[in-house]
Amino acid sequence: MQHNLDTLIQLIAKLPGLGPRSARRVALQLLKQKEQVMLPLSQALEQVAHAIKPCEICGNMDTMSPCGICVDPRRDSKQLCIVEDVADLWAFERSYIHSGKYHVLGGVLSAMNGVGPEDLFITSLPKRIQDEGVEEIILALNATMDGQTTAHYLVDVLQPLGVTITQLAHGIPVGGELDYLDEGTLSMALKSRKAAG
Amino acid sequence: MQHNLDTLIQLIAKLPGLGPRSARRVALQLLKQKEQVMLPLSQALEQVAHAIKPCEICGNMDTMSPCGICVDPRRDSKQLCIVEDVADLWAFERSYIHSGKYHVLGGVLSAMNGVGPEDLFITSLPKRIQDEGVEEIILALNATMDGQTTAHYLVDVLQPLGVTITQLAHGIPVGGELDYLDEGTLSMALKSRKAAG
Repeated sequence: MQHNLDTLIQLIAKLPGLGPRSARRVALQLLKQKEQVMLPLSQALEQVAHAIKPCEICGNMDTMSPCGICVDPRRDSKQLCIVEDVADLWAFERSYIHSGKYHVLGGVLSAMNGVGPEDLFITSLPKRIQDEGVEEIILALNATMDGQTTAHYLVDVLQPLGVTITQLAHGIPVGGELDYLDEGTLSMALKSRKAAG
Repeated sequence: MQHNLDTLIQLIAKLPGLGPRSARRVALQLLKQKEQVMLPLSQALEQVAHAIKPCEICGNMDTMSPCGICVDPRRDSKQLCIVEDVADLWAFERSYIHSGKYHVLGGVLSAMNGVGPEDLFITSLPKRIQDEGVEEIILALNATMDGQTTAHYLVDVLQPLGVTITQLAHGIPVGGELDYLDEGTLSMALKSRKAAG
């Protein structure tokens, strides 16, 4: 009788951050807002699933490939920001701080999870850098072990191309208190200190 | 370009327990699992939205009305468990402890939120109790202020029908430690103490 409701709850429970308990709450809330949320959500899911695809050039998700960022003539091809995931690209785009383009690796190297360079969107990267006349590569990878391993690997691969390679500064987060910082961050912040004022 | 993706993220952010940040994470995860999760979820949402409706007798959500519990001849009509929400009915059903039927109020009385008896599924209740020959009403409402106000109101309304009215015991949760209990619960647990062994 209720088997399609159970199916729905099981599918919701597969989403990140949701377990069986919160999935039931979500399902119930949806049933109470059929017209306002449930049916629009069903439609949006189907539309987006069919419309959005990875960009063949940079790996971003968009309704077209090449994506809106890759074809935008106002974006500076000389600066290429390399990120792990589309979520990181979104984070940059929300803050309007990068006027160049992106390259989304789709993950990071990980010996533990068996992720090698061939599993990432790396193969086409050297050719892209040469074709587009990139002058600076900004490595914006997470400050995790795997993120930094990937950064080192990329430096090795891309250095021969003669481009400038930079990476995001490590340091105290804005609004962060020294008290709560781990030693690694504090030591990086001290090493990378700058002239004040 | 990405406006349908934004729509999807906004809809996901409306779900309980999800904000804009987790909605983006969910959307991205969905895009990575189009065939396995995203499209099945879209279909399940549509199917459930069209199939599931409130039971005209008890307020439960099911693919048919009267619902599966109301038409089940093995359920004991003499015991009627009154709950606030379908989620509470599900909680009882998961623990297989109630063999009677249910009545889902669809909320609780709340002076603050302007919820009166006419906003709840109460009007048909006295007639239902007489028609089905209910002998015991189990008030299984939340131990909140509004829940208890509603319980008092229901006792006033249902007492004249001459049925036994009980309510769930208050006390120490199983596995709970006294140390972490609020004074209200501890005092209720002491007042309702029973002979040991």
